[in-house]
Amino acid sequence: MTDLSCLVLSCTLKRSPAESSSDLLGSQVLDAFRDLGVAGTIERVVDHDVRFGVSTDEGDGDGWPMLRRKMLDADILVLVTPIWMGQPASVAKVVLERLDAEISETDDEGRPLTFGKVAAVGVVGNEDGAHHTSAEIFQGLNDVGFTLPAQAVTYWVGEAMQAVDYQDLDRTPEKTAGTTEVLARNATHLARLLKQSAYPAE
Amino acid sequence: MTDLSCLVLSCTLKRSPAESSSDLLGSQVLDAFRDLGVAGTIERVVDHDVRFGVSTDEGDGDGWPMLRRKMLDADILVLVTPIWMGQPASVAKVVLERLDAEISETDDEGRPLTFGKVAAVGVVGNEDGAHHTSAEIFQGLNDVGFTLPAQAVTYWVGEAMQAVDYQDLDRTPEKTAGTTEVLARNATHLARLLKQSAYPAE
Amino acid sequence: MTDLSCLVLSCTLKRSPAESSSDLLGSQVLDAFRDLGVAGTIERVVDHDVRFGVSTDEGDGDGWPMLRRKMLDADILVLVTPIWMGQPASVAKVVLERLDAEISETDDEGRPLTFGKVAAVGVVGNEDGAHHTSAEIFQGLNDVGFTLPAQAVTYWVGEAMQAVDYQDLDRTPEKTAGTTEVLARNATHLARLLKQSAYPAE
Amino acid sequence: MTDLSCLVLSCTLKRSPAESSSDLLGSQVLDAFRDLGVAGTIERVVDHDVRFGVSTDEGDGDGWPMLRRKMLDADILVLVTPIWMGQPASVAKVVLERLDAEISETDDEGRPLTFGKVAAVGVVGNEDGAHHTSAEIFQGLNDVGFTLPAQAVTYWVGEAMQAVDYQDLDRTPEKTAGTTEVLARNATHLARLLKQSAYPAE
Repeated sequence: MTDLSCLVLSCTLKRSPAESSSDLLGSQVLDAFRDLGVAGTIERVVDHDVRFGVSTDEGDGDGWPMLRRKMLDADILVLVTPIWMGQPASVAKVVLERLDAEISETDDEGRPLTFGKVAAVGVVGNEDGAHHTSAEIFQGLNDVGFTLPAQAVTYWVGEAMQAVDYQDLDRTPEKTAGTTEVLARNATHLARLLKQSAYPAE
Repeated sequence: MTDLSCLVLSCTLKRSPAESSSDLLGSQVLDAFRDLGVAGTIERVVDHDVRFGVSTDEGDGDGWPMLRRKMLDADILVLVTPIWMGQPASVAKVVLERLDAEISETDDEGRPLTFGKVAAVGVVGNEDGAHHTSAEIFQGLNDVGFTLPAQAVTYWVGEAMQAVDYQDLDRTPEKTAGTTEVLARNATHLARLLKQSAYPAE
Repeated sequence: MTDLSCLVLSCTLKRSPAESSSDLLGSQVLDAFRDLGVAGTIERVVDHDVRFGVSTDEGDGDGWPMLRRKMLDADILVLVTPIWMGQPASVAKVVLERLDAEISETDDEGRPLTFGKVAAVGVVGNEDGAHHTSAEIFQGLNDVGFTLPAQAVTYWVGEAMQAVDYQDLDRTPEKTAGTTEVLARNATHLARLLKQSAYPAE
Repeated sequence: MTDLSCLVLSCTLKRSPAESSSDLLGSQVLDAFRDLGVAGTIERVVDHDVRFGVSTDEGDGDGWPMLRRKMLDADILVLVTPIWMGQPASVAKVVLERLDAEISETDDEGRPLTFGKVAAVGVVGNEDGAHHTSAEIFQGLNDVGFTLPAQAVTYWVGEAMQAVDYQDLDRTPEKTAGTTEVLARNATHLARLLKQSAYPAE
């Protein structure tokens, strides 16, 4: 085992115990990390009472501070989201908005607490939208201080206008499985480097 | 007065009575429509208990069915959203996801109930993101059946990385005011045409 | 026959006589318009020497002025583009940049010459990217004055990371064919309305 | 001095000797790298005869192979692009399309030649579009194997609908200058780490 850890946030719109393709892809990502000695957990964001807002704590029972603590404790953050209308799910946008607060949450040397953390993305939908969804999330996560390893996304979508869910496929498509492995391998390598050697302060 | 009506949905993240730049821009859009004889109302989405989901009614106190009824009663829908991280607010994405259900809500001749309705967009932020935000919302609204008049967006953003809110400007910038007028004029014209002459069924 | 006409601009990266999926989809769109009595032509942009720039004429053999004249003569413009990296092809962006000049090309009453014209989009790729590609092009075309009919896009993409081209499919997928018909029907209806009743000047 | 090197590709639409805001921002990025001991050069893409296409060499006088060699020789690639219509310039899309070929250009162990290289982005426009432009380019560069350091973009845009160019400002805005420094510092640190310790092969 390494001393690295990973947090997967699943951004499905559906509360537990409904089954979720995002959760499935997220757990496959976790498995790939575990094979590399990286411990991790997955949280379904919508099960917690995360409030709309752009602060670290919106108060009054807000579920974000607990998730934020897990994010701060992890070396690697993976955001997994379903596609709706070719775009990231609203729940993923809620997470990005809450992460926006990190820009001003800095250490003693003025660096955001996210500096040195690595992020990656998982995207799943019936059809079309994975590249754009990853673009939106890459940009949001990078803006607030996460580093993105080479090929930092794994995804699956079906043919145009088809309706089968990822979780209802007979087996995980080989290309998606291979892409998930690359994601985990590159994120682990980069997280280790940044843990050993942090970005310099000004 | 005409027999046309307009619904503005404000997608600020903040519940009332907090002041909101999105509400301000939305009310200016409403004023421009009123000057053309189009009656309208504005609703702040986050004040209602709109659930995450992709159906017309998620049940259990869901606030969307009431907003949906107002949308179905209106000829023109205007979505006004703040920018966060250069992207539409999560609340705007919640609205798009709920509107996604309209694809299968068809009339006797198989046309979505949104066919014949006109949509427009308002975007406001401290800095940067209006064009992309309108692109995302244009695509979502058009996919579910809304028609977009020429130059269907009004917006304001400040210079890169500045922090002043639209609602704190000394006066409404002339270019934004002029753009708001064009939006209202074109949307009203197009809504009237489509009300008189609906898209043909298959 | 109607008195309406249509111009399809195919934005494939490949010069003639190379075969092109974008050309195929574009010609299918043209056929759907012809069935409704709308005459049209298709032009492969890359076959003309269209220059980089944002004016109506970059001079020195620039191929855009000829294409622009055809655009101005048409009631309906359809931009068909391949997807590269989940995004619109560079050639489509060249076209949008050249169309950007239309904002200041106005008639005697101050309206852009594009006001009253209807636009639609075709998108084709091996996999993933159609919704985002249409979002980018919708926004560009709408910004410069085109009106977008309900469901103004037809597209095809295959399953994630697969490599078959649209032009190599055994037959045109039914859903894409049906979507192409809706596009043509709605665009034709809207173009007729706007030809009979133009947007008002200020 | 370090043994690291940097290549800046400026994606202005204008050929030399026309002045360019993208070139200005690109040269400021280069200066920031030089202050950190990283040698570099800037190339204006449109001055070379880069062909539309998705291969490493389109033949027949194609200018890309020369730029590609410089890219392969550099540890850090910075793409600087103007904004048109809130989106990346077509020339930047040409570059991404040519880089798409790198996915299948692998070393003896099956890793793309881009693995281990760091990328960053510069964006400049009269108004609005920097975040989205960086999102598009982040995604394209990451997909083909580049690693993105924390906060990998520097940019400037003016207030909504204003018309002053970056190169005509009286002085470089402090926030943009500060962001450029962070970009250079983080990219340099990450490039050094990856040069010392490459991503593992399968």
